Amino acid sequence: MKTLAEAFHHTLQDIYYAEKALTKALPKVASAAKNADFKALVKAHLNETNEQIKLLDKVFASIGEKPAGVKCDAIDGLIKETEGIMEEASGVALDASLIAAAQAVEHYEIARYGTLREWAKVLGHTEAHDLLGLILDMEKAANSKLTGLAVTDVNVASKAA
Amino acid sequence: MKTLAEAFHHTLQDIYYAEKALTKALPKVASAAKNADFKALVKAHLNETNEQIKLLDKVFASIGEKPAGVKCDAIDGLIKETEGIMEEASGVALDASLIAAAQAVEHYEIARYGTLREWAKVLGHTEAHDLLGLILDMEKAANSKLTGLAVTDVNVASKAA
Repeated sequence: MKTLAEAFHHTLQDIYYAEKALTKALPKVASAAKNADFKALVKAHLNETNEQIKLLDKVFASIGEKPAGVKCDAIDGLIKETEGIMEEASGVALDASLIAAAQAVEHYEIARYGTLREWAKVLGHTEAHDLLGLILDMEKAANSKLTGLAVTDVNVASKAA
Repeated sequence: MKTLAEAFHHTLQDIYYAEKALTKALPKVASAAKNADFKALVKAHLNETNEQIKLLDKVFASIGEKPAGVKCDAIDGLIKETEGIMEEASGVALDASLIAAAQAVEHYEIARYGTLREWAKVLGHTEAHDLLGLILDMEKAANSKLTGLAVTDVNVASKAA
């Protein structure tokens, strides 16, 4: 990996792997969650993740590459952390920690798509730039919903605790 | 882990481990980086990280706990990803990818400190809330510097490539 074009392609494969991994992890989170609003949000974000994978397919096509993933240690770590919560937490701590973990994942994706969109612009990949901007906005919206939910959930939780 | 207080303590230990791990990883990134501004930024952030660990010591003290870390899979994954870049990337791709990885780490920390600060407020830990807010602002400032650098570096890089 020497050029910016190679770094772009590699990071695209990285986030493709991450989104695919999330389609397997999110249903487990939806099952474990107790808060009905959070459960619904995770299910909606699973649909959105599948939509994002299709948008990434278009990004690959726009640069003349086949869609493929490469192992992404960061998302593996973030998902492992989430699985740890599902094993170790219960009651009030479970939902609060799962919402926090989901926010950490969203922040990771926001960082990644922000980078990819910037690189696409510099590389002159106009279509990829626009598609990546679309996904970035979806992730930012998902994070905002989670933040709102986190504040509500944790305040309710504190009264129950 | 059942209560919000327990989740708070656990997540505090989690980020304590993460900051300690970063004090070991950042010198390697500073050595590998070619861009002088990025190198300087990483060195400055290492000093800041040591300062943040002292602030976290105060957070632990404020809730009557001893400072301690617990293994954090997310930061381990993020650091492993950064190490992968140092092994596999060179030339223009190296700095661009390292800056991007540093932004991913900052985003993770911003998510974590945002959660911790909110939980501290709900739990009535006023001193912890203020200290965590201070660290959160430091991480946000570090991320802004990285974003500025990313845009400059990648534009220079594209002309060199």
